[in-house]
Amino acid sequence: MSSRVDDFQAFRKKMNDRILGADNRAIKRFFAVDTLTYEPGKLDVRTKEMLGLVASMVLRCDDCVSYHIHQCVKAGVTDEEFFEVFSVALTVGGSIVIPHLRRGVAFLDELREKKADDE
Amino acid sequence: MSSRVDDFQAFRKKMNDRILGADNRAIKRFFAVDTLTYEPGKLDVRTKEMLGLVASMVLRCDDCVSYHIHQCVKAGVTDEEFFEVFSVALTVGGSIVIPHLRRGVAFLDELREKKADDE
Amino acid sequence: MSSRVDDFQAFRKKMNDRILGADNRAIKRFFAVDTLTYEPGKLDVRTKEMLGLVASMVLRCDDCVSYHIHQCVKAGVTDEEFFEVFSVALTVGGSIVIPHLRRGVAFLDELREKKADDE
Amino acid sequence: MSSRVDDFQAFRKKMNDRILGADNRAIKRFFAVDTLTYEPGKLDVRTKEMLGLVASMVLRCDDCVSYHIHQCVKAGVTDEEFFEVFSVALTVGGSIVIPHLRRGVAFLDELREKKADDE
Amino acid sequence: MSSRVDDFQAFRKKMNDRILGADNRAIKRFFAVDTLTYEPGKLDVRTKEMLGLVASMVLRCDDCVSYHIHQCVKAGVTDEEFFEVFSVALTVGGSIVIPHLRRGVAFLDELREKKADDE
Amino acid sequence: MSSRVDDFQAFRKKMNDRILGADNRAIKRFFAVDTLTYEPGKLDVRTKEMLGLVASMVLRCDDCVSYHIHQCVKAGVTDEEFFEVFSVALTVGGSIVIPHLRRGVAFLDELREKKADDE
Repeated sequence: MSSRVDDFQAFRKKMNDRILGADNRAIKRFFAVDTLTYEPGKLDVRTKEMLGLVASMVLRCDDCVSYHIHQCVKAGVTDEEFFEVFSVALTVGGSIVIPHLRRGVAFLDELREKKADDE
Repeated sequence: MSSRVDDFQAFRKKMNDRILGADNRAIKRFFAVDTLTYEPGKLDVRTKEMLGLVASMVLRCDDCVSYHIHQCVKAGVTDEEFFEVFSVALTVGGSIVIPHLRRGVAFLDELREKKADDE
Repeated sequence: MSSRVDDFQAFRKKMNDRILGADNRAIKRFFAVDTLTYEPGKLDVRTKEMLGLVASMVLRCDDCVSYHIHQCVKAGVTDEEFFEVFSVALTVGGSIVIPHLRRGVAFLDELREKKADDE
Repeated sequence: MSSRVDDFQAFRKKMNDRILGADNRAIKRFFAVDTLTYEPGKLDVRTKEMLGLVASMVLRCDDCVSYHIHQCVKAGVTDEEFFEVFSVALTVGGSIVIPHLRRGVAFLDELREKKADDE
Repeated sequence: MSSRVDDFQAFRKKMNDRILGADNRAIKRFFAVDTLTYEPGKLDVRTKEMLGLVASMVLRCDDCVSYHIHQCVKAGVTDEEFFEVFSVALTVGGSIVIPHLRRGVAFLDELREKKADDE
Repeated sequence: MSSRVDDFQAFRKKMNDRILGADNRAIKRFFAVDTLTYEPGKLDVRTKEMLGLVASMVLRCDDCVSYHIHQCVKAGVTDEEFFEVFSVALTVGGSIVIPHLRRGVAFLDELREKKADDE
């Protein structure tokens, strides 16, 4: 059981509902495009989610990093693969990425533990 | 009563006093320019604060977003107008803006509730 | 007659056609959201284009700045209003915005001259 | 034959030699890490280069985008795959990415033409 | 005694150990380059740490700001010098830097108090 | 004689005059703060200009990098010191800084040649 993972998902869901409920057409369509982007195409979900993860890391958005780490875990990305994605983010984005890397790895570890607890 | 709104304002005030008290001329003048920028001119305060808000959102600074949301509320920006400002931020800045949008909308809702409580 | 303005628009049009012709659904829908965002709503086109301009300036994208300056000119934004938008961008984004401000103002001046020549 | 591609590579090579010749240890080792990052590991070169490309696009660096597009072409990335990488960059990074997308696609087209000419 | 300072350092140490333990060569070498960069050369540690601090401030990374403030304190940077570094960050990076300046100054004050308590 | 250096300075001067001539008070005062920031204080001009340079490099603004390189040259920064400043920018900001490093070093070399020619 991991409160950080659960809290993050609860706030995310609550606020997404609030935002989409405001009924602004451009915002609603943006969210639809966001979903469409990660659907399988010539590239599979796994690759697309790794792309979303590295983009989130270099732009240094903790919530986006957490979200894509979760999607990557679901898509079967292994720890060794994760660290290769992280190394691209670190090299491209520089040491400024390190604090986000620390929090991202902590989140990944919580997810792995949570899954082990659930089994 | 909303602790997040109050805490934010108390820390902001305390640290601004501390920073200006350090008596660095360039920093003091920068703060004066910052105030001057949002004074009414050919554009009214309302428009200028919406400009400050969208700029803060695409640069993804939660405290700046909170501050300008508060100023916009004082200047009479409606919820529908807020969401149009948010849609520009989201389209220009991308999905990386979404976590800041979530926290911004949560802050806006707290402000509206706090105001209703105070009345 | 201003070659910078014309060249910019020709390249922009050619490449947008090329990109949309590639027939990627997520990209096509993103472009549609981008158009939708600036349509008049509770905020008029003029205000929305000023929002797009300030967002582009603090993110320091010359082409986006040029584009929104052009849209603002069409929507009747005056020079004094432009400089108030620029002052928000400068204060929020810092001196790093200045080179983009220089090129933006040069573009604005070319547009005004071109329009005077066309009349 | 494409002068933009050739000019870019000539300047890149000349300046890399100049920089490494300055004999600053931290800079030389950084360049070595940069090379190491894209070597095949659990992820293949193709995937790593797509990661480098999407990271470069959301950080909006034209030269980095050109470089990784070239590496992706060498690794066999198809046009449809390229546009899926671009769609992730566009959704995550927003419309501010579009000018870089235009120049990236123009560079890709030059590369494809140059290769066709060379055959 | 300052819990924020201690908590920050404990999490930083724990996660750095975790990350380096994952044994990704590119990441380990990046961390080595990061250390090498701040070793004394033609510029002394004091100057290099001030460079690291201003870079972290304009990129708006609180953890990096805290880290370099700590290193600067160890290298003997005075409060007046700190505020001159901050003024460069503020002017270059704009008002968007202010929230990070507030948290940075609060961290600096905690460090100074902690040191006074320890003596 | 170096046209890139001269062109840059001529455009910079022309547009600064144009911008300040527009008589927007907030913008004029911002430019005054910008000048004040780099005046000697507890830190000398040399150190302040190196701070301005590293900040410009990690924010990846070629014109700002060129400007501060020129100021650093005037303040007597040596090539070895320049490369140590560059190494901080590269480590903090990542490989995305490299294209700006290339152009910055090319500009520095032009300045050194121009000065040698003038003597």
